[in-house]
Amino acid sequence: MKIAILGGTGPEGQGLGMRWAAAGHEVWIGSRQAERGAQVAGELNALLPASAPRVRGAGNLEVTEAAEVVVMSVPYQAQRPTLETVAPALRGKLLISVVVPLQPPKVSHVWVPPAGSAAQEAQQQLGDSVPVVAAFQNVSAVLLKELDHVVECDVLICGDDRAGKEVAARLSRDAGLRGIDAGPLQNAVVVEGLTAMLIGINKRAKIKHAGIRITGLPDDY
Amino acid sequence: MKIAILGGTGPEGQGLGMRWAAAGHEVWIGSRQAERGAQVAGELNALLPASAPRVRGAGNLEVTEAAEVVVMSVPYQAQRPTLETVAPALRGKLLISVVVPLQPPKVSHVWVPPAGSAAQEAQQQLGDSVPVVAAFQNVSAVLLKELDHVVECDVLICGDDRAGKEVAARLSRDAGLRGIDAGPLQNAVVVEGLTAMLIGINKRAKIKHAGIRITGLPDDY
Repeated sequence: MKIAILGGTGPEGQGLGMRWAAAGHEVWIGSRQAERGAQVAGELNALLPASAPRVRGAGNLEVTEAAEVVVMSVPYQAQRPTLETVAPALRGKLLISVVVPLQPPKVSHVWVPPAGSAAQEAQQQLGDSVPVVAAFQNVSAVLLKELDHVVECDVLICGDDRAGKEVAARLSRDAGLRGIDAGPLQNAVVVEGLTAMLIGINKRAKIKHAGIRITGLPDDY
Repeated sequence: MKIAILGGTGPEGQGLGMRWAAAGHEVWIGSRQAERGAQVAGELNALLPASAPRVRGAGNLEVTEAAEVVVMSVPYQAQRPTLETVAPALRGKLLISVVVPLQPPKVSHVWVPPAGSAAQEAQQQLGDSVPVVAAFQNVSAVLLKELDHVVECDVLICGDDRAGKEVAARLSRDAGLRGIDAGPLQNAVVVEGLTAMLIGINKRAKIKHAGIRITGLPDDY
C-alpha cells in the first residue's frame, strides 16, 4: 500500500512509518518543508532493515498525491491549514486521523473541539468525498520505533466508512497492533480524549508509556 | 463505610452493593419506591455470605440521609429528578456518579451532554458543597455479582476533589478492582463515552463483558 504520513516527521508519524515500511508498505513522510521530509525519511531508512522498501520524504501535498492512503499525524493546531494544503489531492482517498486535540499547557485535561472531535472537524472540512477514520491516537510513539517491542496497546478505530475502517485494521496488524472497530466517527471523542487521560496517568504514575487494552475479547480477535 | 446507592435496584448498583457488603461496608439500596429498595436488599442478603453486614433498602432520600458516601447509579434520564429529591441530604457528602449518558436506541454511539458529561451536569446541579467524582462506569454489572469472579476491568476515576477520588479508589479495591486516577472531572466524558463504545464492541464481537485495562503501570499500582 502507498501510505503518506502528513506531519510524518513527528515522533508518532515516524514510529508508524517505520512499522509500515518494515511490513513492506511504500511509505512517504510528508512535512511542511519538503527537505525536512526527505531528511527524516533518510534517518528512518538507516534504522530499517535493508529488506524494507525505502521510505521517501517530500512536502505534504506531494506525498498526498503519491499515496493511496493518507495518515494525518500533525499537532491539532496544524490540522486545518494542513488539510487546506492537501485537499485538492485527497479527493477519493482515505484519510486516517491520528490527531489528538490537546490544549497546552493542560495536556492531561480532555478538551473536546466544537465539532465533537478533531476527526469530525476534519470530516466537516473535507466533505463527503474523503472518508475520515480516527485511529492510532493512543499508541506510544517511542515504543513503535522499537520494531521488536510488543506494544501493549489496542488501536480503537472510529469511522462511518466500513472499507476505511478495514484499511485501518489492516494497518494496525501490520504495525504489530490489534485494531478494534470502536464504532462511528462520533465516538472519536473518546479515543482522542483517552490520549490526554493517558498523559495524566503517565505523569502521576511516573511512567512513560501507559496504553489501553480492551478486555473480554476472544484471543484470536 | 456507610454507602447509599441511588438506583441501587439496577444491575450495576446491585453488583457494586454486593461487593461492598462482602467487603464489610454498610450498604443501603435506594429506590424511588422504598419497598422496592427493601426487596432488592433482601435478595442481595440471600446471595451474600452470612458474615457480611446486612444490606438495607429504602427510598432514595432516606438512604442518602443514612450514608456517608452516595453512589448514583440511575439511568441518565433519571439523574436530574433523582438529585433534586436527595439534594437536601447530600450537602457535605461525596457523590460518586456511575451514570452513563446513553441515548436510546443508539446506545453504542457516544453522546456528550451539553455540560460536557453527566458527572459535570450533576456537579452543576448540586453546586460546590457536594464534590462529585465519576467512577465505575465501565465495569460489567453481571461480573460484579459473581463475587469470586476476577473482573478484568480498571476503574477510571475522574474528579476535582482529591479526598473524594481517594474514597473511590478505596471502594474500587474493596470491589476487587483497580482504581486509577484519570484526572479532573472534565475527563469524565471519556470514561462515560467508553461505556457506549464497549457496548458496540460487545455487539460486534458477540461477547458480553468487554472492559478496559490501562497498560504500562507497575504491577503493584
